[in-house]
Amino acid sequence: MASIETAPKSSRAEETGSSTPIVGVFDSGFGGLTVLRALVAKMPIARFAFIGDTARLPYGSKSRRTIARYAAQSARFLVQEQGAEFLVIACNTASALALDAIQEAVTVPVLGVIEPGATAARAASSTGDVLVIATDATVQSHAYAAACRARGLRALEKACPLLVPLVEEGWTDHPVTAEVIRVYLGELNAEAASAGLNPDTLVLGCTHYPLLRPLIEGTVPKGMRVIDSAEAAAEAAVVQFGGISEAKNIGEEKASVELRCFATDSVEKFERLGSRFLGRPVGNVELVDLGG
Amino acid sequence: MASIETAPKSSRAEETGSSTPIVGVFDSGFGGLTVLRALVAKMPIARFAFIGDTARLPYGSKSRRTIARYAAQSARFLVQEQGAEFLVIACNTASALALDAIQEAVTVPVLGVIEPGATAARAASSTGDVLVIATDATVQSHAYAAACRARGLRALEKACPLLVPLVEEGWTDHPVTAEVIRVYLGELNAEAASAGLNPDTLVLGCTHYPLLRPLIEGTVPKGMRVIDSAEAAAEAAVVQFGGISEAKNIGEEKASVELRCFATDSVEKFERLGSRFLGRPVGNVELVDLGG
Repeated sequence: MASIETAPKSSRAEETGSSTPIVGVFDSGFGGLTVLRALVAKMPIARFAFIGDTARLPYGSKSRRTIARYAAQSARFLVQEQGAEFLVIACNTASALALDAIQEAVTVPVLGVIEPGATAARAASSTGDVLVIATDATVQSHAYAAACRARGLRALEKACPLLVPLVEEGWTDHPVTAEVIRVYLGELNAEAASAGLNPDTLVLGCTHYPLLRPLIEGTVPKGMRVIDSAEAAAEAAVVQFGGISEAKNIGEEKASVELRCFATDSVEKFERLGSRFLGRPVGNVELVDLGG
Repeated sequence: MASIETAPKSSRAEETGSSTPIVGVFDSGFGGLTVLRALVAKMPIARFAFIGDTARLPYGSKSRRTIARYAAQSARFLVQEQGAEFLVIACNTASALALDAIQEAVTVPVLGVIEPGATAARAASSTGDVLVIATDATVQSHAYAAACRARGLRALEKACPLLVPLVEEGWTDHPVTAEVIRVYLGELNAEAASAGLNPDTLVLGCTHYPLLRPLIEGTVPKGMRVIDSAEAAAEAAVVQFGGISEAKNIGEEKASVELRCFATDSVEKFERLGSRFLGRPVGNVELVDLGG
């Protein structure tokens, strides 16, 4: 397993003179740490700067205009302040509603999670019909439906606004959560049936949902594939930016990941909750003020 | 029933020359409309300006510093832009963590919901032991415990972070919500028993919870009183500011309430969800940018 070093407060690209580019990872909160976790596993030599805009989360219930403004501020922070040379938008809502705004705000390459998720769904589906569960804002944007349609898939999307609070409450293995999933997926499957669809793939279109994967896999109809867009985005990042990590040439024992985490609200809460998503301690989180 | 007129866009104290003072009501979102609803019922002749800081909700999971900054911005908007002559902080979290910051930010009298809620609990309790359910931030502030202690009560507080999302999902009469309430209140009662308390009163320390009152009353032990801090705050507002409404001298048929609503995010969502809390249509909601 790769060791994670928490970067000292003074470290930055220009200060350390390191030639390893910095990957900037952005989320509205902690959920994007599931994407970072997948990235760390696939890029064993890399430097990461992660920001969670926790003072303004959740994005999933907000409007496009507001989400775009918030996301552009975080993206500029990662590029201009932290020296990130490319960005992974580890947030489905921001990817769905603000990818254009982020690409306009910075000059580095930007990867969202929607397109990789849709690509993975295309690879997984035999029937060509897929289901997507996500936040309210992501569903209303129909970004997954559009990305799926571009790949010849028919997608039916459903907002599941209770799942994020259930994960943040720590009820990832609770009977209430199982029941909520049963209600949501029951409604979604009934809607699919009445629309004449024959779905064989379910996309987890929110970075909180991988923590519910066991419950979700226990609820979907037999044989349905479950696609984790966090995992898919990490794979796409390696393809797009992978040269920097030289992952294939490095033994696990030599792996060394440098991680610097920022939050716009309580760092204590980030440190406490973040480890659930990252799968290990997040280290010292630094408070940053983006204004507002 | 009092009629509600939605104020035309141009109306303000200085523009209309009306002598009826404006009551400013502030919440992080829609929940405070339960307080406004109670205020409207008790002040049949009044002008209200309500702002929901929906671009940055929920406050309940954020830090004191962030909540104070946000709340002060909304308070200044109501006083400086809308001419409010007193403020009701219709948000338990902001009342618990930012009342001082709000009082420093404006020069008009400010009433929160915590003190009225504790006063109502004091009047209701015979044993002197009360339970409080609220958001995470409100509970961590221990504002209710302090206000209860000042009135000779012992209070045990519990954060119930799933209840707000359940109300916003519209599951106010859903078996899942009943089960979540059963889990939370079961844990709280068990904790009270092991602490040697004999509680006979439950305070609803969040303005979303009145919408769950039927489910909550069906779950509490027999004989336990349920106190709605929204209702208690409205009663306190009438005592403190009631002269302006001259409620006692006015027949219902002559009542006329003027209401102007503002939100920092999607006005459509505010108009759609707000009516659940206000108990009638909220009218045209105006978008306002507080920065950030």
